[in-house]
Amino acid sequence: MANLQKRDLVSIDDLATAEILELFHHADEFRDNLRNWSQLCGGTIMATLFFEPSTRTRLSFESAMLRLGGGVITAADEKTTSRSKGESLADTVRVVGGSYADILVLRHPEDGAARVAARYARVPVINGGDGAHEHPTQTLCDLYTLWKEKGRLEGLEVVLCGDLRYSRTIHSFCYALARFGANIVTLPYPGFELPDYVLHRLRRDFGVQAAAASVADLPGIAGSHNAAAYLTASKPHQLALFTNLTAHEVNRIDAIYMTRAQRERHSGEETKNYPRLSSHTLRAAAAKDARVMHPLPRVDEIDYDVDDDPRSVYFRQAELGVPMRMALMAFLLGRIQLRSSPPALVSTTLGIQAGAGLRCRNERCITNGEGVRYLTRDFRLRDSESPPILACAYCEREVEARFVGVAGSQQVFRYNAPEARRLRTEERVWFESEAQALAAGFQVAGRGPENAGTV
Amino acid sequence: MANLQKRDLVSIDDLATAEILELFHHADEFRDNLRNWSQLCGGTIMATLFFEPSTRTRLSFESAMLRLGGGVITAADEKTTSRSKGESLADTVRVVGGSYADILVLRHPEDGAARVAARYARVPVINGGDGAHEHPTQTLCDLYTLWKEKGRLEGLEVVLCGDLRYSRTIHSFCYALARFGANIVTLPYPGFELPDYVLHRLRRDFGVQAAAASVADLPGIAGSHNAAAYLTASKPHQLALFTNLTAHEVNRIDAIYMTRAQRERHSGEETKNYPRLSSHTLRAAAAKDARVMHPLPRVDEIDYDVDDDPRSVYFRQAELGVPMRMALMAFLLGRIQLRSSPPALVSTTLGIQAGAGLRCRNERCITNGEGVRYLTRDFRLRDSESPPILACAYCEREVEARFVGVAGSQQVFRYNAPEARRLRTEERVWFESEAQALAAGFQVAGRGPENAGTV
Amino acid sequence: MANLQKRDLVSIDDLATAEILELFHHADEFRDNLRNWSQLCGGTIMATLFFEPSTRTRLSFESAMLRLGGGVITAADEKTTSRSKGESLADTVRVVGGSYADILVLRHPEDGAARVAARYARVPVINGGDGAHEHPTQTLCDLYTLWKEKGRLEGLEVVLCGDLRYSRTIHSFCYALARFGANIVTLPYPGFELPDYVLHRLRRDFGVQAAAASVADLPGIAGSHNAAAYLTASKPHQLALFTNLTAHEVNRIDAIYMTRAQRERHSGEETKNYPRLSSHTLRAAAAKDARVMHPLPRVDEIDYDVDDDPRSVYFRQAELGVPMRMALMAFLLGRIQLRSSPPALVSTTLGIQAGAGLRCRNERCITNGEGVRYLTRDFRLRDSESPPILACAYCEREVEARFVGVAGSQQVFRYNAPEARRLRTEERVWFESEAQALAAGFQVAGRGPENAGTV
Repeated sequence: MANLQKRDLVSIDDLATAEILELFHHADEFRDNLRNWSQLCGGTIMATLFFEPSTRTRLSFESAMLRLGGGVITAADEKTTSRSKGESLADTVRVVGGSYADILVLRHPEDGAARVAARYARVPVINGGDGAHEHPTQTLCDLYTLWKEKGRLEGLEVVLCGDLRYSRTIHSFCYALARFGANIVTLPYPGFELPDYVLHRLRRDFGVQAAAASVADLPGIAGSHNAAAYLTASKPHQLALFTNLTAHEVNRIDAIYMTRAQRERHSGEETKNYPRLSSHTLRAAAAKDARVMHPLPRVDEIDYDVDDDPRSVYFRQAELGVPMRMALMAFLLGRIQLRSSPPALVSTTLGIQAGAGLRCRNERCITNGEGVRYLTRDFRLRDSESPPILACAYCEREVEARFVGVAGSQQVFRYNAPEARRLRTEERVWFESEAQALAAGFQVAGRGPENAGTV
Repeated sequence: MANLQKRDLVSIDDLATAEILELFHHADEFRDNLRNWSQLCGGTIMATLFFEPSTRTRLSFESAMLRLGGGVITAADEKTTSRSKGESLADTVRVVGGSYADILVLRHPEDGAARVAARYARVPVINGGDGAHEHPTQTLCDLYTLWKEKGRLEGLEVVLCGDLRYSRTIHSFCYALARFGANIVTLPYPGFELPDYVLHRLRRDFGVQAAAASVADLPGIAGSHNAAAYLTASKPHQLALFTNLTAHEVNRIDAIYMTRAQRERHSGEETKNYPRLSSHTLRAAAAKDARVMHPLPRVDEIDYDVDDDPRSVYFRQAELGVPMRMALMAFLLGRIQLRSSPPALVSTTLGIQAGAGLRCRNERCITNGEGVRYLTRDFRLRDSESPPILACAYCEREVEARFVGVAGSQQVFRYNAPEARRLRTEERVWFESEAQALAAGFQVAGRGPENAGTV
Repeated sequence: MANLQKRDLVSIDDLATAEILELFHHADEFRDNLRNWSQLCGGTIMATLFFEPSTRTRLSFESAMLRLGGGVITAADEKTTSRSKGESLADTVRVVGGSYADILVLRHPEDGAARVAARYARVPVINGGDGAHEHPTQTLCDLYTLWKEKGRLEGLEVVLCGDLRYSRTIHSFCYALARFGANIVTLPYPGFELPDYVLHRLRRDFGVQAAAASVADLPGIAGSHNAAAYLTASKPHQLALFTNLTAHEVNRIDAIYMTRAQRERHSGEETKNYPRLSSHTLRAAAAKDARVMHPLPRVDEIDYDVDDDPRSVYFRQAELGVPMRMALMAFLLGRIQLRSSPPALVSTTLGIQAGAGLRCRNERCITNGEGVRYLTRDFRLRDSESPPILACAYCEREVEARFVGVAGSQQVFRYNAPEARRLRTEERVWFESEAQALAAGFQVAGRGPENAGTV
């Protein structure tokens, strides 16, 4: 169904590291004179489909497209769309991504929605934020800002501060920082630490190790009492240190990335004494060369009197979003070419169909939301052993698949049983548990269903 | 007040049959390369005034205009417009259709609103759906799709299925099919049959006769128990057959046009066992060459596994909307010329002013809604005899005018009285009933008002 | 922070009188063929930030920008913006007025918001209406219409009718009429007279004197019972007359400017017997050469049958808004140059920082609204004597500053005390009252704080 030639940006992983660096250079060119490119994408149309409000992101994309000379059509408010008549996202993108528009930008409250759009639309899809899943263009802009400010990403010391649990931009940024070899210092608001699955993925995919960190006093955001952590893959010789009680000392900071409390995602929870960066913070020696970043909108986690400090780059960060998105769209529309190869994993391949077996455990995943009507449950194998780990092909939530069955005989085995290993990939049906297998009508091999529960 | 040179598309009747076919050929040209026409309407502006949400229709128009090189301004949400300050539609279109825009597209909840807009705006007006009245560009796109798929319209067998009562697109489509000589098979959801006034107009204007139909078994949408009807004007030799008990057999179908239940128009009524087209339906022999059409958005009246069947053309139907609307707008803006003559009836002439007499019986008509403040009650004579039938010049609802009076003497006669026949057209005042005439202060000729009620 | 080179239009005072007349001539040129200018601002982007709905104003600006060949991005509904996440206006305009857009048009419910935007944005800001403060482009369009219709502004007799209290367009229009030497006749709906502060400013800034007026009978809007006033600066020899009981007779009218009841600003107050202009009104001899104007939307204060009278220019007034706004934006974007000098007072200079002292008395001022978080309380000296009058630098509400202190010694004096006169401008801290000074920790000079209250 999907055009295999087309490229989408659903996850930051859809771009190879070298491609990202090339896009930075193109963005620099665009930025030199933003008003100079109105012929590059003439005749093309971008549709912004925003099922969740986000003026900033939408306007940034629309500005980028207009500066490229293209046209813009917008469905900006859920209530003004056909969804109120019950239309599925798949239908919407097939229509709007038919003759209406040449590229789609989607924002949607359900995790994994952007992958659904990419799968069904005939034109490139850019994820403008899908639930708690990803917001990859924000990540690109963050990386681009840091790269411009510091001239490199490798080896930078980046402090992440505030709500690290619910902020999707933080999670994507973490993976990207790890991928480019930067080190991460986490300064979470208590109770809003990085989730375990983020740490797990940082370790598995990038070899990142976590250790306690001792952060130089940064008034308002960090002190001796903080539960800071240091995440790095770039200094393997220091790993031993991390197993000691001695925390890694952070005395020089390249960037402080502040985030607001995502109140719309955790209403009811208190956020008093939330970190607040002030001019005092920036007087700390460790912050001498730091850049203050923020994805905006800010609430009050950065004082207004910090705005005029030359190290405050959050408005520049927003400004750089336009040339960065220009580069991305010109690339996806085929108006600029990159010399680098795309990532090995073409993410539009969905891999494993769960069939009667697995169901994504993420209740906010689109496969458990509006997709129930029409999506198959697709997964990708992330790790094949001890036990196998499968990720939802849409929202990327991972599950351990401890049992594997075979469709023909309706038999199921533990993943590490000899019979399981002999099954061909295409006939495998995966389950999290025996109970799930039994509920799907499978039998545990060598036993009748009556005593299956005792295993 | 209206510019007599300008052309509007309020009703599909505003275009001559030959003009429609010419527009199809222009649409084909546009479709060859949608990105190739960005000079054709450069410098012009389209305003979309949507007083009722319809993302699909709005985006289709906006895309068409951008592809023609024009600009777009949009008022997409009732609440963001001046209507909340009490402005009339007539004022809005005089302002927006002054210097703001060169063409208007209107969607409005009141029947007949588009005719009001056409009358007051100085620029061409396109009806994007006005209440239950018309949605002519949807009809154009439907006809265009069918014409492209089948190479002709004459003699096609078109099944209309689902909610035939409340769907304005179905009504317009019926008239257009009859006009182009296609035959119609109705498969209504019980209780949602075509309204009598649609059947009546099909008979009067196009000579269409209705008969019972026996439809080949189409699982999910038709069976022996269906109250199917066959509507045709093209086979006069078979008319005798229709008076028999033998139903017309339908064994070959060119198109199945599915519609969703218009839940927003009949909330509260149940729609369980609503027809549902599935891959089983398409396995029927009669459906071998059928095309599956749907105006979208679909709810669940077509199964998702039908999407990949090559006979499913509903997404193509949406896609063709853009080149079709490009052709229409380029024509109305004077950027392409048609060789064919316009229809004889210039629909902007309003004909008869009802004066103190008739009032449109349609409670959702704009003359009974916001137009009360400023519209005169205008009618057009549709049928001059037995008894005369007048149609509201805005919403086209028909009334029988059994009495005719004369303004000067305030006398009123039965329509077929000799005195009535002698009245000059311009002095006639029409009434539905004596009571209505009396209420307006008229007297029944030759009698005092005291015994008028006994006639 | 602000770019000192850029020009904004926050208040009509931001344009010199000669500049306004030059812009009229440019608007005439644009109007000759609206479709002819699509290269003039190619490559530029206008952002419309509408925190309050106003379709008419927004569409007029968007049309103007598209006709100039620029692009448009829009945040039209408060609920779709980041404000629901708590972002300040200052942050929004710094982002959108960064790389997103080259010019901003703002509409905002808080008085003074446009000045905040102008101060923080790097690009030109146009005030599209900020609370009850100003709506200068409406004023420009009104003046332009009158100038075109009458060939001049000097000495015209302009009747203002209806709600003169809450209509910001009326207030701005008054100042502008006075500046251009026109005379004003007020015909207020009882209770909705021009506020005193408007009269006060007319007198101080333009030498306008008010007198009772006797207005020729104008059915529906004026009669002998009206509390009409005549405001003029152009006939100094008649001033003596105004002090007599004889009212100034108005027998020839150049324009009648009708306004609707601003129901959204005074809900609950009755507006029955609100003035209503009809064809009867226009039959009055005094109205022979009058033009009927209205900022629109109209509710029912002008009858529909007046629309076809050639003296009705309210739709032309709306139409002229597009070329007028084209001229303004082409100027602010630097695409056309004016020969005239800018006004002496560069309004972006804020003048006096109130520090711990004055607070704007206008509860709807942005300094008392969302600006509390980040704005300093800035004032400008309007009148330095008897007592000094300071105007809020944002909403322009004036206060009498009867006390002046000095920051170093925390001492405060009456404004006319010798010590006060010796204070250097930059060390002055202003107060409305002793109580305010004491509350701020200042001491009345020469006394202890214990008996300060007895002064």
